[in-house]
Amino acid sequence: MLDRVESCMESIVEEVGSEYVEKLYKELPKGKRLRAKLVLKVADNSEEAVKLAAIIELIHAASLLHDDVIDDADMRRGVASINAVYGDKSAIMLGDILYSKAYFKLVEFKEDIAKIISNAVALLSLGELNDVRLSQNFSPDEDEYFEMIYQKTASLIEASAKSAAVLSGLDADKFALYGKNLGLAFQIIDDVLDIVQDAQKLGKPALNDFKEGKTTLPYIYLYETLDEEGRERLLSLYKKDLSQKDVKWIKESMQKSGSIERSIDRAKELGYEALKAIEDQNRDSLKGIIKDMIERDF
Amino acid sequence: MLDRVESCMESIVEEVGSEYVEKLYKELPKGKRLRAKLVLKVADNSEEAVKLAAIIELIHAASLLHDDVIDDADMRRGVASINAVYGDKSAIMLGDILYSKAYFKLVEFKEDIAKIISNAVALLSLGELNDVRLSQNFSPDEDEYFEMIYQKTASLIEASAKSAAVLSGLDADKFALYGKNLGLAFQIIDDVLDIVQDAQKLGKPALNDFKEGKTTLPYIYLYETLDEEGRERLLSLYKKDLSQKDVKWIKESMQKSGSIERSIDRAKELGYEALKAIEDQNRDSLKGIIKDMIERDF
Repeated sequence: MLDRVESCMESIVEEVGSEYVEKLYKELPKGKRLRAKLVLKVADNSEEAVKLAAIIELIHAASLLHDDVIDDADMRRGVASINAVYGDKSAIMLGDILYSKAYFKLVEFKEDIAKIISNAVALLSLGELNDVRLSQNFSPDEDEYFEMIYQKTASLIEASAKSAAVLSGLDADKFALYGKNLGLAFQIIDDVLDIVQDAQKLGKPALNDFKEGKTTLPYIYLYETLDEEGRERLLSLYKKDLSQKDVKWIKESMQKSGSIERSIDRAKELGYEALKAIEDQNRDSLKGIIKDMIERDF
Repeated sequence: MLDRVESCMESIVEEVGSEYVEKLYKELPKGKRLRAKLVLKVADNSEEAVKLAAIIELIHAASLLHDDVIDDADMRRGVASINAVYGDKSAIMLGDILYSKAYFKLVEFKEDIAKIISNAVALLSLGELNDVRLSQNFSPDEDEYFEMIYQKTASLIEASAKSAAVLSGLDADKFALYGKNLGLAFQIIDDVLDIVQDAQKLGKPALNDFKEGKTTLPYIYLYETLDEEGRERLLSLYKKDLSQKDVKWIKESMQKSGSIERSIDRAKELGYEALKAIEDQNRDSLKGIIKDMIERDF
């Protein structure tokens, strides 16, 4: 079924009528297609679900293009990013093209579905803007972190589950709650992996988030447990190129303080809340998405 | 009526629920609101027309935000651009937020109207991408120029007139043709002004387009009339910081070769074609827009 989503995405891109756009599009890494899987599982693989999944994945791809420009990222999932190869200008415009073609297709759906998705795009753009602002200073505020990751990541995953539920006449609120909690857990795990996974597997440098100024949950929890001296050391490394010694200190402090484990526990908790939201909804396949995410080696 | 469009735009931006976004939005120069005026004139100032005009102007504002990032522009209509003051990241994200909120409102209209507008946004993003590509080399190809300015500028003006006509039950094709020709003429005049108007009035440096690598119509016509030596000199100045002497030479060559006049004539011709398209449509007020644009001192 994911193959049909890929074909649908390609045919929407072909409609632009530009070989250059097709060429750039083909260089984008496909990723996990989490949002498409979610739509297909909720909406039981219907024809309309394939189209909705394709639209949402195009929107997600557009947001990553702009995200990489914003983060000055050279790599995306282990391959060179479009902005690194073709420049920021092309990446911004390819993002705008994918967004607008996705919207062009989206308006073929009922107004409520179109509104769920377009509202999520506004939230995710706002989340990126807030991410940029929060990245100016070390900001160990858990509430701000959760608000930002809700906007930046969870809102579109929430919208995927919710819109697919509307499409299939299911309980939209329950699936929205599932999607929201899945999205929050997903971002926390992503933030943990930035610390515990090796650079090669990540396809980007280790502790990249911290260097970019992002105060992710493990750093917030670490900061809470550090004494004055430790806090000063952590703050002195914020946004800096880290030596091997610094990297080692951060990773060891994370393990010792239990902030990695506490972050993973928080993600698992959200995962269970997601499952609870849809326990009476007869969608066992959605459990697998949660389990794949949280039951793994870190 | 334009005041009501401004209020409507502001209330859409307020819905984002971010004071920072409102602050940035208020710093955007308002511009001529050509697209809003057009919608209001075609659709006879109806309530729905005000909303449609607001949506289109938000889309236009979003495209200018990305445009300024792409052009590394420090100024927009004589005031500092958002990217210059708050950085590219904020400008890109504010653009994405305005786009998505505009789409959020757009889906409240009938599907055909939503499709006209979203298709135009895909075209204008494609036009920007092509503009970036064409700006890599001096490209004196009139067809390429017209295709690019159709995409980049005329498509949204065409969509404004067309969607407003659909809204009012008027002949959509005729108003689309009016809008398209108006948009093409408008861009040519803009490109002429970059050469003939002084820097202060423009709010950007003189001959800025040429420095940015844009081969606009007057340059294409000039190139056609130059001898080998002149062509070499022109090409040697392409994308360079120009001395007073170079600026003087380009401006005088433009006048002498008649390429400015020929460009203005081309714009006037398109203006008349625009008027002809709607001559039986009982919309005399639309004539004023064309006349204001082409009957002026250069």
